[in-house]
Amino acid sequence: MRIGFVGLGVMGRPMALHLVGAGYPLCVYARRSEAAAPLVAAGASRASSPADLAARSDLVITMVTATRDVEEVLLGPDGVASGARSGTIVIDMSTIAPQATRRMAGQLAERQVWMLDAPVTGGPAGAEAATLTIMVGGDAAVLERARPILERLGRQIVHMGGHGAGQIAKACHQLALLVNAEGVAEALALGARYGLDPQRLREALLGGIASSRVLDVFGARMAAHLVGRQTALASGSHSDPQERQFTPGMATRLYDKDLSIVLDLAREVGQALPAAAVVRAHLDRLIAEGKSNQDLAVLIEILERA
Amino acid sequence: MRIGFVGLGVMGRPMALHLVGAGYPLCVYARRSEAAAPLVAAGASRASSPADLAARSDLVITMVTATRDVEEVLLGPDGVASGARSGTIVIDMSTIAPQATRRMAGQLAERQVWMLDAPVTGGPAGAEAATLTIMVGGDAAVLERARPILERLGRQIVHMGGHGAGQIAKACHQLALLVNAEGVAEALALGARYGLDPQRLREALLGGIASSRVLDVFGARMAAHLVGRQTALASGSHSDPQERQFTPGMATRLYDKDLSIVLDLAREVGQALPAAAVVRAHLDRLIAEGKSNQDLAVLIEILERA
Repeated sequence: MRIGFVGLGVMGRPMALHLVGAGYPLCVYARRSEAAAPLVAAGASRASSPADLAARSDLVITMVTATRDVEEVLLGPDGVASGARSGTIVIDMSTIAPQATRRMAGQLAERQVWMLDAPVTGGPAGAEAATLTIMVGGDAAVLERARPILERLGRQIVHMGGHGAGQIAKACHQLALLVNAEGVAEALALGARYGLDPQRLREALLGGIASSRVLDVFGARMAAHLVGRQTALASGSHSDPQERQFTPGMATRLYDKDLSIVLDLAREVGQALPAAAVVRAHLDRLIAEGKSNQDLAVLIEILERA
Repeated sequence: MRIGFVGLGVMGRPMALHLVGAGYPLCVYARRSEAAAPLVAAGASRASSPADLAARSDLVITMVTATRDVEEVLLGPDGVASGARSGTIVIDMSTIAPQATRRMAGQLAERQVWMLDAPVTGGPAGAEAATLTIMVGGDAAVLERARPILERLGRQIVHMGGHGAGQIAKACHQLALLVNAEGVAEALALGARYGLDPQRLREALLGGIASSRVLDVFGARMAAHLVGRQTALASGSHSDPQERQFTPGMATRLYDKDLSIVLDLAREVGQALPAAAVVRAHLDRLIAEGKSNQDLAVLIEILERA
């Protein structure tokens, strides 16, 4: 099965490399030749447009940022749809709005192109290690044909339902993650106000039922931040915001994008999500302060001031 | 070292049994002889009052419910303080207000009785398996003397600071846990509104960075509840609230007590905890509806209606 891949960023690049490594004939599309270079070096060919890519592939994977990026790649001028033969499978692994996914799946189906939405969790580390969890929406028979390829990318492949169900599951994942991060930030901030050692507090909490991957990963960065602040206060020096940056993980603006998807979904069915609304207010504030490219652990700054 | 133990409930009983099992001479105090019976059967002696217990012990452990219970056992008429010799160690493993702990530690110190606050996480299962995490406040030298005993009860013993620091850490733990539970409830409720299978959604989320013990344990009960509701709706029968009870874990009223401790601490230092405030509103509602003895997973009911 010939695979086409669009979106060779921090997630897509290692995923595409796994597919080349597994022996699949791979064609990539990227505007910038630097993005395609590592794949071409590994044996992939390079298409001149998404349409060209689709013409040379039996299955196309997209791993881009936002809804409009997917729309452009699939249905824009020289898009996948205009080059794909009948029977082509398109797997969109980006995290985008479920409503848009359903609409695109319908438009592609008119051309006998079968779409799956298959967003992932696990981040860059999971992409590198091929341990992603993949939440799939779409037709079960199409998923079965695509499964051997998805198994090269992730450890857990869960069929959630029809078109958009994978995106809805991903939105629920981001919702749980974001509220959990808010709770960890509130807990570490409260402890710090009372002079507890944030790193020791995080360790103690990891021993209890409050334990979570968010506490482990983001909690470590939040605690490091609080410790830096305590040290700065103790030494009498001014704490310099430039020195306490949160850059290791996924940018806050991407979580912000995902939270918008969550809240749009909630509004559509009249589901109140009061803790998500708290996170919304905090992310709005961080973005207004120009911190959209920092790690989500920057949430602790809001709580420190709250 | 002779140990006295007060509070032989669902947590205290297995803890006290571990100490008898380890060969420590153990004396217990309980108003009701049924509570003391399993310990007496295991070889413990029974005291007629906390004062009597203290007179027969080098170290006294209390594991009761609320601040006023600890105050009564330690400083009430015939309390531990009135029977303890100079040099006795008192370890309060209950979850109570840190301010009260500090006050009691001061009053006991006037009689040369040394107190540690050592609340735990891990619940009844952790007490049974002696895998509790124990967060300790008080003098480090006193903790070192008590450590061999605490090691019989827990896997991780973390010294958080002076008197009350253990209780503050426990409050932070409960804060992170409760906000996490709210996030899991919001995520599962949103998914259910869109017809996702709640159990499959929980499994998918467990594969991602949203994974947490709360999602695992409470999420399973919340998902079971949602599935019961979906089944009832599909079969056209009325869902009977009596059939969907949440009884397996710690009662919601105990989390409610802990959340009050959290919010009092926050108020005292002017720390805003907006997500905790959301949980406060939801627990108030559940308690007003007479659900205080149900498992915290009952939170999903609030979100289902929200």
